[in-house]
Amino acid sequence: MFRHVVLFTWIADATEEQKATVEASLKELPGVIPEIRAYNIGGDAGVNPGNYEFAVVADFDSVDGYVVYRDHPAHRAVIDDTITPIVANRVAVQYSY
Amino acid sequence: MFRHVVLFTWIADATEEQKATVEASLKELPGVIPEIRAYNIGGDAGVNPGNYEFAVVADFDSVDGYVVYRDHPAHRAVIDDTITPIVANRVAVQYSY
Repeated sequence: MFRHVVLFTWIADATEEQKATVEASLKELPGVIPEIRAYNIGGDAGVNPGNYEFAVVADFDSVDGYVVYRDHPAHRAVIDDTITPIVANRVAVQYSY
Repeated sequence: MFRHVVLFTWIADATEEQKATVEASLKELPGVIPEIRAYNIGGDAGVNPGNYEFAVVADFDSVDGYVVYRDHPAHRAVIDDTITPIVANRVAVQYSY
């Protein structure tokens, strides 16, 4: 499998509604991007201090499937409309396993 | 499931041998910590610029299983002996899905 992992923090002014919209919008993507094999996202559970705030873990058969997802217009729209307005920090890794 | 995600960058002086030792040492943990349900790790594939360098994604039945892993002596030994000497940046999220 080929896995895409991205972790975010949000700006201090981000509202709970905006954060919920990010999550809801991302959760629609597996229904419109068939290359996605698994898609599990969520907000930090608060177990440890100093964590980032939100995680996206997406699995694909190969790097090609990931690139379809990365560049898909539905995904780009979620980024532009819901994530970019509230993101403070973003770190990512893609890896094969 | 309860998922632990952590992404790292390494110091510039980290050797390939040191990075390989991190990966090999972590891969022994599922054999000694039965609470681990899935454990998929790897170095960044180099598809995108600006990424972090290494990912660990571990799944547990619940937060309790994660805490067993977090605090397990075998895990702490891997952190102390192989990760701490070469880590530059570390970001993490734990979340339920």
